[in-house]
Amino acid sequence: MSLNQLATHGHRLFVDVHTHVYLPRYASFLRSRTTAPRIFSRPNTDNADGTSEERLLILDNEPSGGRPVGPQYWDREEKLKFMDRHGIDVSIISSANPWLDFLPASTAHTLANELNEDLETYCSTSPTLTGLHNLKRLYGFGLLPLVPSAPISSLLETIDQISKLPHLRGIIMGTKGIGKGLDDDALEPVWEALAKTGLVVFLHPHYGVDSNAWGEKENGHVLPLALGFPFETTTAITRLILSGTFDRHPTLRILLAHSGGTLPLLSSRLASCIAHDPLVASRLQHDARHYLGNLYFDAVAYGAEELGFVSDVIGRAGAYEGKAGRKDADGKVGLDERRRVGSERMLFGTDHPFFPPLSETEKWMSVVENLDAIESVDGWTEKEKDAVRGGNALKLFGLS
Amino acid sequence: MSLNQLATHGHRLFVDVHTHVYLPRYASFLRSRTTAPRIFSRPNTDNADGTSEERLLILDNEPSGGRPVGPQYWDREEKLKFMDRHGIDVSIISSANPWLDFLPASTAHTLANELNEDLETYCSTSPTLTGLHNLKRLYGFGLLPLVPSAPISSLLETIDQISKLPHLRGIIMGTKGIGKGLDDDALEPVWEALAKTGLVVFLHPHYGVDSNAWGEKENGHVLPLALGFPFETTTAITRLILSGTFDRHPTLRILLAHSGGTLPLLSSRLASCIAHDPLVASRLQHDARHYLGNLYFDAVAYGAEELGFVSDVIGRAGAYEGKAGRKDADGKVGLDERRRVGSERMLFGTDHPFFPPLSETEKWMSVVENLDAIESVDGWTEKEKDAVRGGNALKLFGLS
Repeated sequence: MSLNQLATHGHRLFVDVHTHVYLPRYASFLRSRTTAPRIFSRPNTDNADGTSEERLLILDNEPSGGRPVGPQYWDREEKLKFMDRHGIDVSIISSANPWLDFLPASTAHTLANELNEDLETYCSTSPTLTGLHNLKRLYGFGLLPLVPSAPISSLLETIDQISKLPHLRGIIMGTKGIGKGLDDDALEPVWEALAKTGLVVFLHPHYGVDSNAWGEKENGHVLPLALGFPFETTTAITRLILSGTFDRHPTLRILLAHSGGTLPLLSSRLASCIAHDPLVASRLQHDARHYLGNLYFDAVAYGAEELGFVSDVIGRAGAYEGKAGRKDADGKVGLDERRRVGSERMLFGTDHPFFPPLSETEKWMSVVENLDAIESVDGWTEKEKDAVRGGNALKLFGLS
Repeated sequence: MSLNQLATHGHRLFVDVHTHVYLPRYASFLRSRTTAPRIFSRPNTDNADGTSEERLLILDNEPSGGRPVGPQYWDREEKLKFMDRHGIDVSIISSANPWLDFLPASTAHTLANELNEDLETYCSTSPTLTGLHNLKRLYGFGLLPLVPSAPISSLLETIDQISKLPHLRGIIMGTKGIGKGLDDDALEPVWEALAKTGLVVFLHPHYGVDSNAWGEKENGHVLPLALGFPFETTTAITRLILSGTFDRHPTLRILLAHSGGTLPLLSSRLASCIAHDPLVASRLQHDARHYLGNLYFDAVAYGAEELGFVSDVIGRAGAYEGKAGRKDADGKVGLDERRRVGSERMLFGTDHPFFPPLSETEKWMSVVENLDAIESVDGWTEKEKDAVRGGNALKLFGLS
């Protein structure tokens, strides 16, 4: 650890669990495509000097013809510079959406395997954190070929591949599964294998909701990103809870993007709706609120009140074991204790390289905001804040 | 006020602001229809004794062929019995969805006017609250003919009608406006008129989101109700915020169903997305979080942590005036103070007659849960709890 790092953090490391890359092989692949998702060049719209810019179009009919992309999306040096600028010691890198979702099964399988090897190399050849027992600065989440009609054997083989790559500590996953969502019975062997390996599953949105919901007003990417992403994550994890997956695999380790979308605010409403529906209620072993204690949440919510609340609902999960109502109803566990317990499942993230600042030398507002938010949560002591900034990640990913 | 009421509440009244009715005229109208929304009879599925039951089908392809309905959906005596059983002194009654959404404009106008008169009579002939200056036990939210192609003049006439009916204190509104949503420029005179009259606009979901999101597993009404409803409300109010409506009409009084859906948990993410989108950012006068301080939220969230959090984000709204970031960043207003300020815009509700209990003599779980939740919020004193249970509503609806 450098003197600078020591001075900045004391002995506490900052670990970013939500940080993306388009690996060079994947970026080249996107450049070769003529329909979304694709990367294409067009004359630079910011000036008329004849230069061109590359743009990434993730979805058809995306507002503004996609977004400008550059080296920060694929170049490892840019990632390390970003980390240094913000005092981030270790990053757990994941491929950015849309992953392999749009590919035929055999192409997806081959490309997943190649990209997993690429990411292993990207991480294993990254700098070592000075003085810290060969801890690298980069670790990764691998990819599964989760596409329609993917044979389950192909998914299980890839889980096996990833579990043997020492710098990959999890997988990133969208919400579609092999076409029918994550509550698809066909995925049961996949959850079983993931629970067995201990790989962390980073559940991340991509599709949002039907764009008719956003209306006709020009609002850029605001509605799909601010609302559609969290709705999608919430729906996916709720369907997974309702299918009994956590009853069958309580050791499954799922990390939810964007602090769980809106599940934290809807879990009591969900519990009430389930209680009024005997079919669903009889299928589950616990009150819906209990399952939030099985999950991990990144701390990418942009506000201290939000983070405090997320820790509140994780911290009460234990009181909702079984279906007999709240166990601590007569002597409710206090706010500070709930928040302490809940904080153990929350992990700092940045969402880099999305939401770049307007100037190249600035600190990224999204990072500053999320660090400020952690610093300002009511009820968290320095111990909880340190854990959210890095300690929890070191444990979860087996790095301590 | 009866001795019993005094004994139960001291001098504090319980006011239910989220409680629905299908007025007899409306129920008859639904019985005359052959496509959704409709009320139809079918043999009672709970026993084979040859009796029939009425079922309400709100949407086409609704799970389980709709839901059973009975007198509690239209009979005023049932409403009053429900209120007495739960110690509710006053209810502000609103028509239940889907209101008039499915009708041609002229029918909708006529029926709105008739139903508003019906509701006025329903309320004005309700019992007086003993000893309390002719306070009635029932007040109401009227209906506007908000249907595609409705002439704005028809909406303005109906606002005028409602504002002259002394027991109607607001209107209930879905999310579609006159077909293009609530951020439709054509609705500007409607917001202006509503702001001028001071009528409270109760914004309530009906459509949810595209049902493809719910997948193929049998989950009854759980997903559309637990997730779809809050997503719809969140989208509608966010679009209204983005359109600058609260900048133009800061005195508009909008009450959000189900504690604002998920807006409270997404407003910081929304602010961050807006900050990265110059077009939208330049359109608005304030940080997105500021607008939560313009809104009112029912306390129908089924959990104490949820209510505490909602009050937290309302209570911080003042610190986000303008676009220069958080004003109290260096000496953050404490949790108790934020929650005290926020509680002033939160109001008890039950969502009656939905979510009935299994036995007729039981207290309704949804009511008990929501009252328990209010009782258990960290940082709320008895004063705040009393205000949420009734005092805030008395003020908002001009009943004190």
